[in-house]
Amino acid sequence: MTVRQLSLPELVDACVQSGVENVGLWREPVQAYGVRAAADLVHEAGLTVTTLCRGGFLTATEPEARAAALADNRRAVEEAATLGTGTLVLVCGGLPAGGKDLHGARERVADALAELGPHAEEHGVRLAIEPLHPMYAADRCVVSTLAQALDLAERFPAHQVGVAVDTYHVWWDDRAPEQIARAGAAGRIHAFQLADWTTPLPRGVLDGRGQIGDGAIDMREWKGYVEAAGYTGAIEVELFNAELWSRDGREVLAETARRFLEHVIR
Amino acid sequence: MTVRQLSLPELVDACVQSGVENVGLWREPVQAYGVRAAADLVHEAGLTVTTLCRGGFLTATEPEARAAALADNRRAVEEAATLGTGTLVLVCGGLPAGGKDLHGARERVADALAELGPHAEEHGVRLAIEPLHPMYAADRCVVSTLAQALDLAERFPAHQVGVAVDTYHVWWDDRAPEQIARAGAAGRIHAFQLADWTTPLPRGVLDGRGQIGDGAIDMREWKGYVEAAGYTGAIEVELFNAELWSRDGREVLAETARRFLEHVIR
Repeated sequence: MTVRQLSLPELVDACVQSGVENVGLWREPVQAYGVRAAADLVHEAGLTVTTLCRGGFLTATEPEARAAALADNRRAVEEAATLGTGTLVLVCGGLPAGGKDLHGARERVADALAELGPHAEEHGVRLAIEPLHPMYAADRCVVSTLAQALDLAERFPAHQVGVAVDTYHVWWDDRAPEQIARAGAAGRIHAFQLADWTTPLPRGVLDGRGQIGDGAIDMREWKGYVEAAGYTGAIEVELFNAELWSRDGREVLAETARRFLEHVIR
Repeated sequence: MTVRQLSLPELVDACVQSGVENVGLWREPVQAYGVRAAADLVHEAGLTVTTLCRGGFLTATEPEARAAALADNRRAVEEAATLGTGTLVLVCGGLPAGGKDLHGARERVADALAELGPHAEEHGVRLAIEPLHPMYAADRCVVSTLAQALDLAERFPAHQVGVAVDTYHVWWDDRAPEQIARAGAAGRIHAFQLADWTTPLPRGVLDGRGQIGDGAIDMREWKGYVEAAGYTGAIEVELFNAELWSRDGREVLAETARRFLEHVIR
C-alpha cells in the first residue's frame, strides 16, 4: 500500500532491485491480478508475503450483510493461504449507519471471529486484529486499543487470533507497551507495522500517514517493545500517504528502505 | 465557542432570550471585551459563568517559553476568579517541534501544575485537565485519556486539580466509564462538556465537532456516567463546527438548546 502506484509486477521487480525480500500485499490488487498468478509472480522472484491486508468489517447487524462479510472473510483466508502468508490482518469495521453502540459492535466482531477462527486454522492462517486509532472508531474500526484487541483475541486460541501492532494507531497510548508485552507472552503478535504521525491530518484522516522519520513517533522505541515481547517476525512499513502516492513508486520504495535503515535499524 | 460568531453582548442577550442561565466563556473574547467589563455584563444579565477555557499549553522545554506559559496561566486563573467561575479548563499542550517524547511532555505538565495549583487555590479556582482525543496527542494535548488526566490530577489536592470530561474526546474509550467513577469518587469532575462525533473529519480535525444528536455518541449514556459518579454541576455544549459558525448565532443557540433537551434531558 505504501507504493500502490506500482502494479504488482512493478512492485515485485522494485523489491528485488531494492533488496527488499518480504512484502505485505493488499487484497484488491491481488484479486485484480489473480490470486494464483500473484502467488507465482511473488514466489518466482524469491519474495515472501508477510501479511495479507485485509479482512474484517464484521460489525453489520443485518443478516444478509453479515453473511456476506463472513463469506468475504473466508475468501480472504483462502487468498492468504494461496499467497503463502500465515497472517490475515483484520480491520474490524465501524458502527452501522446511525449506530451508537460501540460495545455491541465489538461483540459482533467476537461472534464473527468464533466462526472465522477455525476456518483460518484449517488453512494455516492466523487472524490479526488491528486496533485502529480512536479517530476511526465510528466509521472504520470499533477496536481502538491493543487492550481491546487482546480482550477479543484472548477468547480464542493464539494460533487462530492475535493482534497487529501498528505504530500509527498505538503510539499515543501509554498502556500500549504493557499490552505489547501481554500480547507477546501469549504468542499473539501476528504483525508489526510502522508509519509515522504527522500533522495536520488531512480531511477524512485516511491518507496522511507520515514517512518514517518525518513525525512524532520514536520507531526504535516501538521496535524495542515488540522485540522485548519476543517478536521475531517481519517489520512492515505501511504508509497511506497521498503525497507519496503521487511520486515515482520506485523512488518512494528506495526512500522508504533508506528511512527504515536510518530510523529503525541503525 | 459554540456560537463564537456572536459578540459577548449578543451572546449574553441570546442566552437570556433562550432561557440559558449558564455560559462557558473563552479567554480571547473576554480579554478583548475587558475581563471586568465582561464579568459585569454577564452578572448583570443574571447569568453564571460555568468555566473559563482555557489555560494550559504547558509542555515547552525552553525556559523562556515555559515561564511565559506559566505567567499566562496565572493570568487565566485571575480572569476566572474575576468572572466568578470556579473552574479553569486546561488544554495541556502537544509535543515541542520535532519532539517524540510524550512521557517527558506529560511530566512537564505535572511540574507546571505543581506551580499553578496553589495559585489557583488562592483565587478559589480549580484547574480541570481536559484529556483531548488521541488524534491531538502530537500537536495539542499530550494527555489523551481520562486515566492519564487522573494520574496527573491525583498528584495534587482535588480542590486544586481535577478533570474535564468531554464526550467528544472520551466516547471511544471503553475505560472512560470506570475512570469517570474514579474521578467522581475523588471529587475531581470539575467540568462536563458535550459534543457529538461526526465524520468525515475535516482537515486539521479542529472544527468538525457534531451538533448534539447528529453523531455516534449516546449523550444520555455519558450523562448517566457522570451523574452516577456524583456530578451535579453544569453540562456545557462545546461545538467547534465551521458549518455552525457560518450560520446565524441566535438560531444555532436555539437549535442547540432544543437538541440538548431532546438528546440529553428528555
